[in-house]
This record gives sequence, C-alpha cells and structure tokens, in this order.
Amino acid sequence: MINLAIGIDIGGTNIRVAQVDSDGRVLKKIKRETSEDIVKNLTDAIDELITENTAGIGIGVAGVVDSKTGVVSRSPNLPQVEGIDFAGILKEKYGIPVRIENDANAAAVGEKFAGAGRRFDDFVMLTLGTGIGGGVVIDGSLLPVAAELGHITVEAKGRKCLCPNSGCLESYASGRAIVSEVIEELERGAESLLKGCCDGNIYKITPEDVYNYALEGDTLARETLKNAGKYLGIGIASLVNIFSPQAVIIGGGLVGAWNILVNEAIKEANKRAFPELMKNVEVLPAGLTDNAGVVGAASLVLYSDITR
Amino acid sequence: MINLAIGIDIGGTNIRVAQVDSDGRVLKKIKRETSEDIVKNLTDAIDELITENTAGIGIGVAGVVDSKTGVVSRSPNLPQVEGIDFAGILKEKYGIPVRIENDANAAAVGEKFAGAGRRFDDFVMLTLGTGIGGGVVIDGSLLPVAAELGHITVEAKGRKCLCPNSGCLESYASGRAIVSEVIEELERGAESLLKGCCDGNIYKITPEDVYNYALEGDTLARETLKNAGKYLGIGIASLVNIFSPQAVIIGGGLVGAWNILVNEAIKEANKRAFPELMKNVEVLPAGLTDNAGVVGAASLVLYSDITR
Repeated sequence: MINLAIGIDIGGTNIRVAQVDSDGRVLKKIKRETSEDIVKNLTDAIDELITENTAGIGIGVAGVVDSKTGVVSRSPNLPQVEGIDFAGILKEKYGIPVRIENDANAAAVGEKFAGAGRRFDDFVMLTLGTGIGGGVVIDGSLLPVAAELGHITVEAKGRKCLCPNSGCLESYASGRAIVSEVIEELERGAESLLKGCCDGNIYKITPEDVYNYALEGDTLARETLKNAGKYLGIGIASLVNIFSPQAVIIGGGLVGAWNILVNEAIKEANKRAFPELMKNVEVLPAGLTDNAGVVGAASLVLYSDITR
Repeated sequence: MINLAIGIDIGGTNIRVAQVDSDGRVLKKIKRETSEDIVKNLTDAIDELITENTAGIGIGVAGVVDSKTGVVSRSPNLPQVEGIDFAGILKEKYGIPVRIENDANAAAVGEKFAGAGRRFDDFVMLTLGTGIGGGVVIDGSLLPVAAELGHITVEAKGRKCLCPNSGCLESYASGRAIVSEVIEELERGAESLLKGCCDGNIYKITPEDVYNYALEGDTLARETLKNAGKYLGIGIASLVNIFSPQAVIIGGGLVGAWNILVNEAIKEANKRAFPELMKNVEVLPAGLTDNAGVVGAASLVLYSDITR
C-alpha cells in the first residue's frame, strides 16, 4: 500500500527531509545544513528515507517558484537555490511524482490536509516569521499563484522592504520588522526594560523577547507589538475584501505573541474590512507547528492524491 | 440550436437587458430605469427578449454577491437591491439556468469570453469608473471570491472611503477620487484652467474634463491624474505579487485617460512589484467597451457552457 510521501522543507539555514504518512504524521526526519551542494545533501537524505511505499516527493522552498517550470526564480534568503529545477532533478532520479511550491503555499496545503484548514473550503494562510509568507486555498485547492501576501503595500510612502517595494506588510508586521523597530527606538534612547535584555546586547533581541517583555508590562515592547498587529489587521482586511474567505489561518513563530499581536490585528481588521465579508471569517492559529514545513511539503503529494 | 443568453447589467441608475449570441454579439438591447419595482422591470424586459434558444440568464450587479446564496448582500450605490435573490426568482419563473455575479467579476468573464482576456489563462481585471471594481481569472476560470480590488489599503492612515476602511485604492485612483481632489484644490484657490470648466461650475467637473484639461497642459489636472496613476500602480504591484498573472486588464470609463493615468501606473508598478513576476505581466485595456456590462453578464452563462 502506497501511503507515504517524502516532505522536504528548504528554509534559511537548514534542509529538513521527512517521511510522512497519509495522516500527516512524521515517521522519520533528517536535518541537513544548506551547505554548497544542496542537491547532493537532498538526495543523500532521500536515499535514506525512500521506500517502495513512497508515493512521491513534495518540496516547500522559501522563495518564488515559477508555477509553469517549477524552477525557483527568486529566493532572497537563499540565493544559492535560484535557478535550480529541484522537481525535474528528483523526478528524473527517483521516477516518482515530485511537486514543488513556495513554503507558505505548502504550509497552506498542509493546513488543509492535516491542520486547522481541514474544516474550511476557502482560507488564507499567513506565516509570520522573520518575513511574512502567504498561501490561499479556494474550493479546497491551493490557488496556483505566487501569493506573496507579505508584499502587499500598506503604506504607500512607507519603510523600504527587502524587495523592491516600500511599505510592504512584511516591513511592519514581521519578526524582522518588530525587532528593527525596537532596536531603533532603543538607539534613540527610549526608556525600556529591553535595554537589559540579552546581557545588554540589544542587537540580539528576538521577537520572543519583545513578547516576553510586553507581558511584563514594558511599554515599548507592548506598543511595538500592537503597532505591528494594527498593520497585520490592515493586511488581513485587504485579504478579506479580496478573497472573502471563511478563515484566516496564522502560522509561524510570531503566533506565540497571539494575545497582543493577533488580537490587535483582529480588532483592526474588524474596523476596516467589508462587514458582510468579515463577519464570516474565523481568525485562528495553524494546527501544524513543529513539523509544519515537512508535513506541508509532503501534503503537496498526499493531499493531491486524495483529492484529484 | 441553443446559443443565446440574456445578459443583465444592474448598475447605478439603469438596468440593461440584452440578448447576446455565442460570439458575444448583442442582438437586441433594452434599457430600463432602476425604479421601485426592479424585479418587474427586469421580467418585463426578459419577456420581450427570451426565445426557446435562450440557454440561460446572466446577471452582473454593482455590489457584493454572496457566493453561496446568490443574494446581493451589499450595494452602496443601489441599496434597493440588497437582500433580493434575483437568481432564485428568475430561475423559478423561466426554468433556465441563472448565474449572478458582482459586475466586475462578470466583466472579467466577459473579457475571457470575448475580450482582451481570450489569450490569457490568468489575469486580473480592474474596472475604473466612479469606483474601482475587480475580478480575477485563474486557470481560465473566474475565481469565486468577492475580489473587491478597489478596497485594498494603499495608505494606512489615508482618506476615508465610502466603505468602513480608510486609504482604499478606490479613494485615490477612481473617477470619484480624481474629481474630489481637483475640486478640493480649486476650493483652496489653486490656479488652474479647470476653474473655467463647466460654465464655471466646478462641481460639475467630470474625470473626462480633467483628462482633457491635462492634455491642454493644465498642471493641476495633469498632476492629479498622475498622482491617481501612482496609486493605481501601487495597487497593481500588490495584485501582481498576490496573483502572479499574465495580464492586468483595465476597463471602465477612466481607460480614456490611459496615456497619463495608466502609463504612470505601469511605471510605478514596475518599481514596486517583484521583478520576476512583473516582467511577465501585460497591462492592457479591456476589449469590451460599450456593451461590456451585458456581454459580461451573458458570458456567465455562455462561457461556462463552453468550458464546463
């Protein structure tokens, strides 16, 4: 019985390769560094995991994947994967189906397959980490588009993004944005308990630190998170007006700051989106957490097997 | 041979009902005012046009249509249609298929069926008129979502929109926005040839007047259109990053101001969108013009007959 898939998550500094079963459970997992020869690292790991019951290989990669060719056309955080046709190479070597998607698109399919998206036909997925990724499921299927939802403009004359744009949602509501804002304020001499964080090295502050200090009542930490939440809500309102979804599912590391960040976002989105659309929308955390990357990738094969 | 459809365009002050053939040609057309009894006006017109060769009825309406029930749940410019189940009523009376969509969604299907969208699988449609409407075609089919593309935020703390939001694209790049901006500037005493427009009654200025005065070299008119174009470009960049389309098709009355408004928008979008996505995008005017509303509506039936 063929009911396994290999899920590959190609992220910032690591590659994770896992054997995933048809219930979305991770049976075995291998972690490799993204050193020079990514393809070799990948095939070594696959060789260890592949069995005759492996239905296919799914890959989620942090970057823009050309939907026609499957080639990674842009990956700002991982330039060494640009131009590589992973799907073509692996299909040729192993002779089984291979699907590749942007990692947030894969996360959306993972949520539909085995996470918080199971009970929805239409939802928008946002992954809040260092940056902001997105994926959209309509009528139960992944929308085959770039869905770079972190790169919609929320401030026309706003902060310069890492992409060519200024004022992107990601420049206001990502982990990177939150930490930058806190550091800038501290550099300007703002009073905050965060000055004592990380043995006094403010350049080591993480989004988690900001959240923890906010919970302790620090004003700078709290206001920074609330401001990020406001912008997240502006983005959510635009996405609700576009996609009229049943749910907005939020994953990634910043989900830990839900009580401040996302609650503020929900409040703001309620003020801004069309009321007759927003009233149908549940905003909820992703169901897949630790293994979201590899399960999402594997679900590109497992879920399409189930539905198509 | 069944190859005709009735297309109904329920707009601001008029209802247009037409018999449309399978090539998208309008054979007969009736215009009625949107007086009190809209349903009666509608059925009277249909009775005149329906034949045994009529495959179905398509309706485009200016408002938000609930995708599950077909009921118009919101129509700011035409409140008397809110809550009416046009599709249910007409299906019951005539016993043929009836499809209802937001008018800009219908326009997008019309472009796919018989307009500039014929050669694209994936495109975004924007209708620039008094307001801004949107529709999205992916893999050759209309995306079944609200697609209220005029109501994505471009300025977080921007102008109040007619919807609950502030800073919507529509508040910067629609015909209403352009005229409001010109009038406000004139009220503040700006020097402009537009003061002499419309027999000196500046409150009668239309977007067309603004374009004509811009062509004559009037600075206020020209700068206002360019500013609107800049915001339109910001919106287009967000939509390109979301939908990675092959084309952005622009319809509606403001298409007449293409040389200033849309050219500026293209320039701005090129600066902002992901280059590897934007390089694949054609920005072009709608192919359907005068009869776009009724042909778009009829295509909801005719095009789905062809493709499904």
